[in-house]
Amino acid sequence: MVVLMSGARIVFDRWDGRYARRMEGVRSSATRDLFAAAGQSDMVSFAGGMPDIARVPNELVLAAAREAILDHGAEALQYGSSEGREPLRRIISGLMAEIGARVRPDDVVVTAGAQQGLDLLAKVFLDPGDVIITEGPTYLGALQAFSAYQPRVVCVPMDERGMLTDVLEQRLRELGPQGAKFIYTIPNFQNPRGVTMAPERRRRLLELAREYDIPVIEDDPYGRLRFEGGHMRPLRALDEDVVYLGTFSKIFAPGLRLGWVVAPSAIRRKLLLAKQAADLCGSSYAQLTAEGYFSGTSWRRVLRHLVTAYAARRDVMLAALAEYFPAEARWSMPEGGFFLWVELPSFLDLGALLPEAVEHGVTYVPGSAFYPDGRTGRNCMRLAFCYASPDEIREGVRRLAEVLEDRLELYRAFAAADALPPQDADREDVRA
Amino acid sequence: MVVLMSGARIVFDRWDGRYARRMEGVRSSATRDLFAAAGQSDMVSFAGGMPDIARVPNELVLAAAREAILDHGAEALQYGSSEGREPLRRIISGLMAEIGARVRPDDVVVTAGAQQGLDLLAKVFLDPGDVIITEGPTYLGALQAFSAYQPRVVCVPMDERGMLTDVLEQRLRELGPQGAKFIYTIPNFQNPRGVTMAPERRRRLLELAREYDIPVIEDDPYGRLRFEGGHMRPLRALDEDVVYLGTFSKIFAPGLRLGWVVAPSAIRRKLLLAKQAADLCGSSYAQLTAEGYFSGTSWRRVLRHLVTAYAARRDVMLAALAEYFPAEARWSMPEGGFFLWVELPSFLDLGALLPEAVEHGVTYVPGSAFYPDGRTGRNCMRLAFCYASPDEIREGVRRLAEVLEDRLELYRAFAAADALPPQDADREDVRA
Repeated sequence: MVVLMSGARIVFDRWDGRYARRMEGVRSSATRDLFAAAGQSDMVSFAGGMPDIARVPNELVLAAAREAILDHGAEALQYGSSEGREPLRRIISGLMAEIGARVRPDDVVVTAGAQQGLDLLAKVFLDPGDVIITEGPTYLGALQAFSAYQPRVVCVPMDERGMLTDVLEQRLRELGPQGAKFIYTIPNFQNPRGVTMAPERRRRLLELAREYDIPVIEDDPYGRLRFEGGHMRPLRALDEDVVYLGTFSKIFAPGLRLGWVVAPSAIRRKLLLAKQAADLCGSSYAQLTAEGYFSGTSWRRVLRHLVTAYAARRDVMLAALAEYFPAEARWSMPEGGFFLWVELPSFLDLGALLPEAVEHGVTYVPGSAFYPDGRTGRNCMRLAFCYASPDEIREGVRRLAEVLEDRLELYRAFAAADALPPQDADREDVRA
Repeated sequence: MVVLMSGARIVFDRWDGRYARRMEGVRSSATRDLFAAAGQSDMVSFAGGMPDIARVPNELVLAAAREAILDHGAEALQYGSSEGREPLRRIISGLMAEIGARVRPDDVVVTAGAQQGLDLLAKVFLDPGDVIITEGPTYLGALQAFSAYQPRVVCVPMDERGMLTDVLEQRLRELGPQGAKFIYTIPNFQNPRGVTMAPERRRRLLELAREYDIPVIEDDPYGRLRFEGGHMRPLRALDEDVVYLGTFSKIFAPGLRLGWVVAPSAIRRKLLLAKQAADLCGSSYAQLTAEGYFSGTSWRRVLRHLVTAYAARRDVMLAALAEYFPAEARWSMPEGGFFLWVELPSFLDLGALLPEAVEHGVTYVPGSAFYPDGRTGRNCMRLAFCYASPDEIREGVRRLAEVLEDRLELYRAFAAADALPPQDADREDVRA
């Protein structure tokens, strides 16, 4: 029996020692813990990747809900099939065609957001100790989903053109015959780096995956949120064996918890078994509402407005960073999506600095949350520009710059005295 | 690489050998495979436990949806907290009070149906090879959820008063210091047996769980669907350490995929981590719709009508069984819920007989689906009386009796010739 301290409460755990070993590796999402702070008035949140759903007109959603309930009530309120409703899978097939991927409705499994897709794929593929390959840094929700299945995560670093495929090749060679269970990548406007994988890197990644016979999982929540530059074909358009994760959270609303997985039939069968075991089936009510919403054309106008708004916010954030942030800071220039990534001098620990930032009325996610070891990336932070208003963004960046400036003065004093800085974070390319 | 045969299609599986070991133990739900057959016209389905949602007035649901979208659109469409919305947890707290259990809103985690609760609990507790204890037979969805975590399932048989606690005690003694990770029970109108655990058995089960320090998971989807007799207090009302699973699927609609887990705080913390990893959070849209539906009083009238309808259908099924079924058949007399259990002579294999029944226009779930070994209970079947209309129920039972009668004649011929019957199914009490 252990005693857990939780704020002011003490919790006696009768069942300590009875939990599965996997739970030792599952960390709470830093983002989630920050949602509470984000609720405070006058707090500027750059933490969570929450879409600006205020731009989704309520009347459009209500019209879809009315149709779902009045015209399809018997289906909307009942259990459905594990793979999801056929009309919605047809809509998804159409959405995939628009980004260049030929996908039949039967290739699709509807999930509770893309997050459930990550969980189910990990469930289907991972035994404890299995190796998986991800970008480093990578989406913290993916790390969280995977960690419950106790893999060893090998991170491949990125530059402004995405995952370094030469490093990937090296890692694959080092892994030898044991190999990796899958390669997980976010090619478009990567979370958290904000970079997009260049076409030649996409092709090279697929070549290597073929050569080493490793499934590729392509996570593409932000693909349709491009602000500039030409559309790049998803990996799934280049190779039909790629497992593709999509979501309605960014092109409609996360509150419906709807995403999808496109997978070759053998994998899809396994996913369906895992889906049945996990929740029997998705919400027919949410699926029918999405069908109504996407059956018209208004969603395209709404999405255009969303993209315009996100682009404007990115511009405001980039301008504010240039204006307020210290000279030592470097940041990415995302062509779309929700996030950018700021790198600061290696001695700064932005996890340790977060409470101070919160006190100054601004939140972010420390870079270490995006690495499996929870240590790398401490001198980095992810800033979400999707949710705060332009005015809030400017004010938030100003506040954050103040906090950083205070800390950097200390560093500069050390540098002037020719002493070592007090602390040094690890380099980015790690294997945990 | 293996080749899977799937109906007429041949599937090459490039990644055979790459899947997790757990997937070997996850079977497809027999119920799910029968949903397709159930869709045929003139088919009487006694297979799936689908509620009669036609009795849930669409206008009530629409009013709730309208309120959710127009008054709370910013929340309904956005991500929510992993534990679920506080107003819904307050409603759940009230529902629990009505059945005699004192539960604070903070004790509740909202899940995607009770099924997700089963998956998350298994994820939190089970390492491969861990022992868990269930009733035998038990809910096939629970077996499916648990199987993904590779436990050894010990089944304790039941009689008309529920789980045989003397056998439970014996099993616990046999297990020794290794013990079991949890005891899973469905005390009310058990799925699939239809029996209810007597109060003294409830008390004894809790005593044994205390003595052996094993968590108890109480699954109570049907508790409020009582046709006659007095309400029995749930285990959670007798012991605050019991983990309780509830669902809105039977008192509102499964299409929203909303259920809940009540758990002591230490377990709840683990569940929340697992929930985040599985799907980040539940659907705010569905939760707000449920809040609207349960904020009024109309749901009580709807539920009374549902209970009356289910009771009438049970009566029709019992009368039809008495009228049509062969003398060799025995069945349970459920005081509520969705199901009854029919036992036939041990040589009958009702899994093998199912295609013939389907040809005759009637489906059921073979008893073996409710045992972890997939063999025990072959001479039994679960009949759901919740979904078919009274006329369909009479006709379905008549068709089923015909199929059984044909097969039994063979048996009677053997018996008359004093020969052994051609086949013999195992006894019910097994450990797999």
